[in-house]
Amino acid sequence: MAEGSRPRSVTRADVARYAGVSTAVVSYVLNDGPKAVAPLTKERVLDAVRVLGYRPNLAARALSKGQADMLGLLVNDNRNPFFAELCHALDQASADRARQLLIVNSDRLQVSTSEQIRDLVSRQIGGLLIASVLTAGEQALVEHVGIPTVMIGQFGEVDGLAGVSVDFAAGARLGVEHLIGHGYTDIAFIGSAARSDARERGWHEALTDARLPHGVLTHTTFSYQGGYEAGRRLIDSGRLPRAVLAASDQIAVGLLTALREGGARVPEDVAIVSFDGTTAVDYVWPRVTTVVQPLEQMAETAIRAVLEPDSVPRYVEFATHLRVRESCGCTAS
Amino acid sequence: MAEGSRPRSVTRADVARYAGVSTAVVSYVLNDGPKAVAPLTKERVLDAVRVLGYRPNLAARALSKGQADMLGLLVNDNRNPFFAELCHALDQASADRARQLLIVNSDRLQVSTSEQIRDLVSRQIGGLLIASVLTAGEQALVEHVGIPTVMIGQFGEVDGLAGVSVDFAAGARLGVEHLIGHGYTDIAFIGSAARSDARERGWHEALTDARLPHGVLTHTTFSYQGGYEAGRRLIDSGRLPRAVLAASDQIAVGLLTALREGGARVPEDVAIVSFDGTTAVDYVWPRVTTVVQPLEQMAETAIRAVLEPDSVPRYVEFATHLRVRESCGCTAS
Repeated sequence: MAEGSRPRSVTRADVARYAGVSTAVVSYVLNDGPKAVAPLTKERVLDAVRVLGYRPNLAARALSKGQADMLGLLVNDNRNPFFAELCHALDQASADRARQLLIVNSDRLQVSTSEQIRDLVSRQIGGLLIASVLTAGEQALVEHVGIPTVMIGQFGEVDGLAGVSVDFAAGARLGVEHLIGHGYTDIAFIGSAARSDARERGWHEALTDARLPHGVLTHTTFSYQGGYEAGRRLIDSGRLPRAVLAASDQIAVGLLTALREGGARVPEDVAIVSFDGTTAVDYVWPRVTTVVQPLEQMAETAIRAVLEPDSVPRYVEFATHLRVRESCGCTAS
Repeated sequence: MAEGSRPRSVTRADVARYAGVSTAVVSYVLNDGPKAVAPLTKERVLDAVRVLGYRPNLAARALSKGQADMLGLLVNDNRNPFFAELCHALDQASADRARQLLIVNSDRLQVSTSEQIRDLVSRQIGGLLIASVLTAGEQALVEHVGIPTVMIGQFGEVDGLAGVSVDFAAGARLGVEHLIGHGYTDIAFIGSAARSDARERGWHEALTDARLPHGVLTHTTFSYQGGYEAGRRLIDSGRLPRAVLAASDQIAVGLLTALREGGARVPEDVAIVSFDGTTAVDYVWPRVTTVVQPLEQMAETAIRAVLEPDSVPRYVEFATHLRVRESCGCTAS
């Protein structure tokens, strides 16, 4: 097909033409002034806006509640069990509010994340949820899309944007302090080098506070394979730490596999505490003690933050809790 | 907001009004007759169709290629690792064709699958992918939505609908025959009772052909928990089978957990072959031998079947292959 046959954006002129008014009148209606517009004319303009699906940036916030019943979710990779569970929880919370959820992976090889965001916004979505780490440029773009946007699971508040997250640093401290409680003094961390990870900071602070030496720090990717490779490196170094805080459940499962291959027992030789609280780590052996992110509450709050921004604080940070299993050395229920 | 403020469907009358023509002329243009329409008028009507996003059922097929760059995917539950990997492969294949993928879970508690399908279709999608088992009523609905639709991973061809799947029965035979090759004669099956599962048939036929007695048949849900519960029932029955074909990787992982708790060793006491070929079963212990569905090829073919229906046979069934690990009793690489 020729390029020209693709849908073009609806403009203010289209709305004016459809409603049979001037573009200025369209502006008066959408901006609620400066000039007054007769009720019937106003209704005709709003009808045109709805029929055409016109969404001006400035008026988007005001219109979104009535106009759009679809929300967009940008997620890094839906295969990661944590994000899979997050997507599902957000889908359920959206369904509770009669909204459809458009899930988009941001790891598309062919398309930049900025293009993905622009594309989502052009689809008349009523709100945007982002569970993916953004670059500064992408952040700037998101700040200007003109529809309610909520960042999910970021390390702290992102300037100018609403957010729902957990206290990653406190969660990591919880995990490390549990390992310290077992009497371990050589506690390593396996996490991501992608950007300053608050879990790494929490690990570091907990060791400092307990006057313990800082254990080995290993950076890897967030995947089974990443956890496996980090584990192989620890094995190959010939100097295994007594305990490890893993930054994600997937990393912990990959690590378990590498330690098993290397002949190290968990928890007898190496104890593990993980981060996320997905279902999968209850079905490996030993089952993994993990810092749980309260996904349902986070999802419910994120959807509320998008649909009723005024009913939720601009940034909501949930506490985590520990789900105790056997990988840390506990004899769990 | 009042109900009336939600967007209403665009009608032929809206197109006529916007283009400044009669509704009859709109029909002539969209149906290419019976009366001729002047080129400039035709262009004005098509412009109105595009701007308004009008999509009449009859003209949908013809318009979809040029008009829509979004595909809809109905999936049962995106948390199941197999469906998570399928979603991701379909997303990548969509990105290759510059299409966005709208992923929708069909296990929403608040909304029926029929409503989900109607909702997807109303969103100007250019094609519909369904990776979820449908009732007869839902199938009838899908047959009449008027946009290219492809069923993914069904047990055989669905009347009147295009499909991409694997030969489940042959795959199950492959798994059972591998277990028979190990010398096991007491081979159970754990699968779903939801509807006639071709894997169950393949298991049954392979045992019949080998003149072996039919082992225990256990029905459960497709989840970790389902596999775990089926395993507990086998343990509690006091009579463990020598080998099991599990209908999904998730079931196999849950089964592993139950057997471990029950003191049964895998593969020494109970050998397992699974179905799906997800990444996760390479990160449990023992690693699970599994019948692999060629996900990338299936995804690529499904997207092609939706976008260029004439370039792909109406029903494409891929062969599976075995990924040999340790759970079956092999000493694998």
